[in-house]
Amino acid sequence: MAKELTTREENYSQWYNDLVIKADLAEQSAVRGCMVIKPYGYAIWEFMHDALDKMFKDTGHVNAYFPLFIPKSFFSREADHVEGFAKECAVVTHHRLMNDPNGNGVVVDPSAKLEEELIVRPTSETIIWDTYRNWIKSYRDLPILCNQWANVVRWEMRTRLFLRTAEFLWQEGHTAHATKEEAEAEAQKMLGVYTEFAEKWLAIPVYQGVKSANERFAGALNTYCIEAMMQDGKALQAGTSHFLGQNFAKAFDVKYLNKENKLDYVWATSWGVSTRLMGALIMSHSDDDGLVLPPHIAPIQVVIVPIYKSDDQRVAVNARCLELKSRLEAKGLRVKYDDRDTQKPGFKFHEWELKGVPVRLAIGPRDVEEGTAELARRDTMTKESLSIENIEGNVADLMDVIQKNLYQKALDYRNSHTYDVDNWEDFKAQIEKGGFVHAFWDGTTETELKIKEETKATLRFIPLDVKEETGVDVYSGKPAKMRVYYAKAY
Amino acid sequence: MAKELTTREENYSQWYNDLVIKADLAEQSAVRGCMVIKPYGYAIWEFMHDALDKMFKDTGHVNAYFPLFIPKSFFSREADHVEGFAKECAVVTHHRLMNDPNGNGVVVDPSAKLEEELIVRPTSETIIWDTYRNWIKSYRDLPILCNQWANVVRWEMRTRLFLRTAEFLWQEGHTAHATKEEAEAEAQKMLGVYTEFAEKWLAIPVYQGVKSANERFAGALNTYCIEAMMQDGKALQAGTSHFLGQNFAKAFDVKYLNKENKLDYVWATSWGVSTRLMGALIMSHSDDDGLVLPPHIAPIQVVIVPIYKSDDQRVAVNARCLELKSRLEAKGLRVKYDDRDTQKPGFKFHEWELKGVPVRLAIGPRDVEEGTAELARRDTMTKESLSIENIEGNVADLMDVIQKNLYQKALDYRNSHTYDVDNWEDFKAQIEKGGFVHAFWDGTTETELKIKEETKATLRFIPLDVKEETGVDVYSGKPAKMRVYYAKAY
Repeated sequence: MAKELTTREENYSQWYNDLVIKADLAEQSAVRGCMVIKPYGYAIWEFMHDALDKMFKDTGHVNAYFPLFIPKSFFSREADHVEGFAKECAVVTHHRLMNDPNGNGVVVDPSAKLEEELIVRPTSETIIWDTYRNWIKSYRDLPILCNQWANVVRWEMRTRLFLRTAEFLWQEGHTAHATKEEAEAEAQKMLGVYTEFAEKWLAIPVYQGVKSANERFAGALNTYCIEAMMQDGKALQAGTSHFLGQNFAKAFDVKYLNKENKLDYVWATSWGVSTRLMGALIMSHSDDDGLVLPPHIAPIQVVIVPIYKSDDQRVAVNARCLELKSRLEAKGLRVKYDDRDTQKPGFKFHEWELKGVPVRLAIGPRDVEEGTAELARRDTMTKESLSIENIEGNVADLMDVIQKNLYQKALDYRNSHTYDVDNWEDFKAQIEKGGFVHAFWDGTTETELKIKEETKATLRFIPLDVKEETGVDVYSGKPAKMRVYYAKAY
Repeated sequence: MAKELTTREENYSQWYNDLVIKADLAEQSAVRGCMVIKPYGYAIWEFMHDALDKMFKDTGHVNAYFPLFIPKSFFSREADHVEGFAKECAVVTHHRLMNDPNGNGVVVDPSAKLEEELIVRPTSETIIWDTYRNWIKSYRDLPILCNQWANVVRWEMRTRLFLRTAEFLWQEGHTAHATKEEAEAEAQKMLGVYTEFAEKWLAIPVYQGVKSANERFAGALNTYCIEAMMQDGKALQAGTSHFLGQNFAKAFDVKYLNKENKLDYVWATSWGVSTRLMGALIMSHSDDDGLVLPPHIAPIQVVIVPIYKSDDQRVAVNARCLELKSRLEAKGLRVKYDDRDTQKPGFKFHEWELKGVPVRLAIGPRDVEEGTAELARRDTMTKESLSIENIEGNVADLMDVIQKNLYQKALDYRNSHTYDVDNWEDFKAQIEKGGFVHAFWDGTTETELKIKEETKATLRFIPLDVKEETGVDVYSGKPAKMRVYYAKAY
């Protein structure tokens, strides 16, 4: 099975597509640009969901649910927002089908035209702030710290599984605050939550930054982001957190009585991560043999494969496998015992490698006799014979070792693919090779856009902890006060 | 606050609407028929989700995610299905907005018309069976036991929060099997899961039954259901599980190679429960003081309210409350300490009664001295003074007592509102008064529809364990072989 994967070297993009399909993560549906997330892929998403959801709740947030549809007129209320989203949205115009009077099956009933068209939400700021207007009267009603887990639709023309799909799953936090400072602090706090999640759970090292004006979310005053480096040298934005100022409060007339008994507009943030993280996860760790999953979010952490020829052997091996399974499970590990008799061990080995299971235990008749098991690590592809004495403790410890190893490997890769560059020739050459390019910027959108035009690289972020330095813009030659990060990106 | 609730006696329907709003469960949105599920309401739904999800996984099911949109032509493939859903669906016809050339804001871009319209899923049989065609080759690929948590849209003309909304949240299980027997067994198994969930978690007693042909799901050969009795004497269908035969396999050409190496169509089931359960929960237990929540799904199980006048008292009471809070939490209870200094205890008492918190503990200075707390039960509205010695154990035990009491109360109500009726005059009179009417049926749709026409009662279900008896149809006077259940219903 794994042999059928295109290698990364050969064609990285094809490798990714092959892997998503062959590891049973997702597939295209009959609806253009919409994916089916298959059970194995969805199980990984569920671990992401559960970990994030707990982090949100631990930081005082609650979940709620807002409508799928947004009245068209809501989009016109915030000028930047409509520019950002109007060009790629699904529009509901009718609410009924009927039998075609000419006998051509089912057609839209023209008499069921909506008075106002509805947009399938591409993001929910507008409908949520329309709702918040009724929830907020005074400073006592603030802050509001809501999150929503939902599907959203953006009518992308070129789609790729997980990375860019017309429909995707995400969470969107929408908070309301009495002061600017509190809202800014919230936006940054959630960036911190995303950073911790990406690094601790997904083992993906990320840079924390803030977007240039040109790359901001439509309607935001500040867009914070986490950015990761994929194995092909392209950057991937893994999460964003926006300080929205009072833009949406003004657009939807959301005011509160402050402690001085004066009316003021409410301050806002929004922040989100999506099933795009599945793409980041895949491209950070996987290899030419298939998926490599960090143990924390692996649906199966240990797979046990029995090896036998005779029936007697099968009985003895089976008993040992079941014993180990229950010992490992008692330790809290997620274990699959692959006792299918329709497939040979070699086939199973390949299949679970392809699916990225962190640890494989193979048990044969000799292992039963000698009290051993053959342990194979997916991250290093190494094998060793291990005593079954306290195997559950050793395998549990190994999970942490693997988790850290994957993070370290990705961190080394990212760091060794981040380059300080000081002149335009080097800049162009390095962008062509890939990686983050760290270079002086004069602070203008003009320069940023010209660089994009000439190299296809975008200004990924200004580091959150940027130092003021004196230098010269790598492209324009004008004075510059800081270095920023450029890359080609997903 | 609670005083503003309409009483059930006065106007049951208004009582329900008031309660949903005032207990902060949900509200209408700016989009016709679509609700906002507020954080407190959503938290209850999350407990329902988590409990059900575990039960599904424990019975071998996995989650997946299928597209929100369904190509219009898919609906025509299964004749009954299109009849059932075409009349109430949201139709996407365009994929872009644009600025009105006449300056009237944003309008639909006529050049972005879709070649084929997309329907926002009202249920996902069609798109899922279109997908299953590629997943199923032989009997080795079966069974497929998928569930999906999703939003769906049915363009209802008359909507009510939770009970009937244009968009709602639900889960839909879709399974594929090699044999008819296995599919039938699956449909019945999931009915059992729903029954256990309704009774053990929601404390709602339900009858298990099968629908008459006339009330079947569009495309099903058999629709199993659980039916509950609300406090106004109306029935509520709380969940359904469908045996779909080979209808969808035939419509989407899903065949498998059986063990005899012959091609055959695959057998199907689907089953679902929705946010409608929130309505069932509210109407089963709540009273004129507000919501009454079974402890198993109460977001807050115990609220602690401090009572003090002087500052010294505040300090002592606060310390005791915090101590009790952590002792209760250590016991696994979900505890809220309401230490707001902006509201008086009486206000808090009413608010938490309105929100249905099962147990309230009030602690005053005398309680601190005497080592007691005042415990109030929401289900019985009784109060007692309790020693704080092992209070965590006693309160934890009380949760089970309350859970069982709510179930028993609802069961007694349901049983005392189920009537055996043997003639048409009694039938009409009883239906008018409310409750389930258990009467002989001649087995014809004709009789069923006439009864509906004359009384607005529907044939709710044929009991799963129906006994064959000899009798006379209560309406037609024709020979009848069994008694079935009628009621007016939500």
